[in-house]
Amino acid sequence: MEYGDPQSVARMRADFDRQGAMQTMGITVADVAPGRVILQMPFNPAFSQHHGFVHAGTITSGMDSACGFAALTLMDAESEVLTVEFKCSFMAPAKGQSFRFEGNVIKSGRTLTFTEGRAIAIDGTQEKTIATITATMMAVRGLKP
Amino acid sequence: MEYGDPQSVARMRADFDRQGAMQTMGITVADVAPGRVILQMPFNPAFSQHHGFVHAGTITSGMDSACGFAALTLMDAESEVLTVEFKCSFMAPAKGQSFRFEGNVIKSGRTLTFTEGRAIAIDGTQEKTIATITATMMAVRGLKP
Amino acid sequence: MEYGDPQSVARMRADFDRQGAMQTMGITVADVAPGRVILQMPFNPAFSQHHGFVHAGTITSGMDSACGFAALTLMDAESEVLTVEFKCSFMAPAKGQSFRFEGNVIKSGRTLTFTEGRAIAIDGTQEKTIATITATMMAVRGLKP
Amino acid sequence: MEYGDPQSVARMRADFDRQGAMQTMGITVADVAPGRVILQMPFNPAFSQHHGFVHAGTITSGMDSACGFAALTLMDAESEVLTVEFKCSFMAPAKGQSFRFEGNVIKSGRTLTFTEGRAIAIDGTQEKTIATITATMMAVRGLKP
Repeated sequence: MEYGDPQSVARMRADFDRQGAMQTMGITVADVAPGRVILQMPFNPAFSQHHGFVHAGTITSGMDSACGFAALTLMDAESEVLTVEFKCSFMAPAKGQSFRFEGNVIKSGRTLTFTEGRAIAIDGTQEKTIATITATMMAVRGLKP
Repeated sequence: MEYGDPQSVARMRADFDRQGAMQTMGITVADVAPGRVILQMPFNPAFSQHHGFVHAGTITSGMDSACGFAALTLMDAESEVLTVEFKCSFMAPAKGQSFRFEGNVIKSGRTLTFTEGRAIAIDGTQEKTIATITATMMAVRGLKP
Repeated sequence: MEYGDPQSVARMRADFDRQGAMQTMGITVADVAPGRVILQMPFNPAFSQHHGFVHAGTITSGMDSACGFAALTLMDAESEVLTVEFKCSFMAPAKGQSFRFEGNVIKSGRTLTFTEGRAIAIDGTQEKTIATITATMMAVRGLKP
Repeated sequence: MEYGDPQSVARMRADFDRQGAMQTMGITVADVAPGRVILQMPFNPAFSQHHGFVHAGTITSGMDSACGFAALTLMDAESEVLTVEFKCSFMAPAKGQSFRFEGNVIKSGRTLTFTEGRAIAIDGTQEKTIATITATMMAVRGLKP
């Protein structure tokens, strides 16, 4: 896979920085490659559910963003990315000191991009996949002012 | 449908109040009935994406919680609720002054509960469905200390 | 909702009749309205799983087709419909003398159409929802020879 | 991963052979390992959609079965497997001389098993992933007579 245009990484990072939600949750960019984005987040009790683990919606925010930005890296300079839909499965409690969100493009088309990803809980030296996502992303052109 | 035990609403509200994530996002309980929970949230720029609308992950947090708590209202006193998986579709931008999240139980069993719900954006007097969810919830017994 | 063009029903029925899969499974059209299609199928042991009920994949075929054709009724004359993705939940065994598949459009756009539907098992005078679907459909133009 | 009991493969194949749907669609078992099942199917016009490709529901039948039987290989001798839900994405037309369906267990628990899989179209010497699935399977005990 190849970047959609020479400014793909810069555009992706600029969009990321404009997302209040990412800053509020403490999610940052760990790595970017064509069709692949990795985000990370420290544990934060402000986003816990009632057992003290991270809320499924917060884990989803991280996975959705990793997939959406992975899709964006392959899109042309006129395109913005929108999430059409996703499905997330939660196979273990979101328990850890920090979390990593991986998003990968499986198939990119002019309009739709199919992605998948996962969330990994990091506890000391141990890593565990706690959730997976499959998401359909859409390139939207002409949204910009 | 009937409440799972006489304390269902009290237990549900206690669990809700222990979720840091709900407080951080400003989500509150608007209504509870057996197998049905409605939550609400004002617009908050701290949870925006890069166009200034609410992030899909935040909308998902509200819909997942409405569905999970709807499932919990039908469970017995020994059970806690976990999200197994959900699928969310996003049909319009999350643009509004406030949002309502509806969760409904479709079929409840001893172990699994099937739910569905939606997110509605409220803009002045106008309401619009912006996202839908279908979620599988699981009753887990014996988690309590 | 309104039909996408004056020939929508005729086009939909012609596409339906060209689907070998529908004929092989014995699925027929019960009703068509703008954005809504109902199909039906008698029980057939040729499509059973190992408990003698209908296979989940066959139930899915009926639900997917109902949703896809429901989407097609709203599309313009140049468009064909493709399934992008669906999620199906199975809440009861597919046990009955016949089955009804309902597909409804929730939101239609120029490119994507969001649909949902369900499968109902009919046993004598009793009806039961056995499965639900949410599906994203895509209008594709220029496929015709 | 390890087989759930010494008769796992024999039980899986016996269940498979009792599925009328698999025989009707011409699907056979290509390979079995603990937590992994591969099925195959020749192209058959009896299961086509209106462009002459294989119907999405038939592709789903193969992917669902591969995932369900993969889950069954890890279950104990008292358990049968039921599909709770699945999501399938369709990234290319189901066009080929034959098809391979791969199902893999991602996480197995006493009650729920998370699986994922894909469908591959084979055209001469070329192989192409045309669809993916993520499915939740449930172990049900005490169904047998």
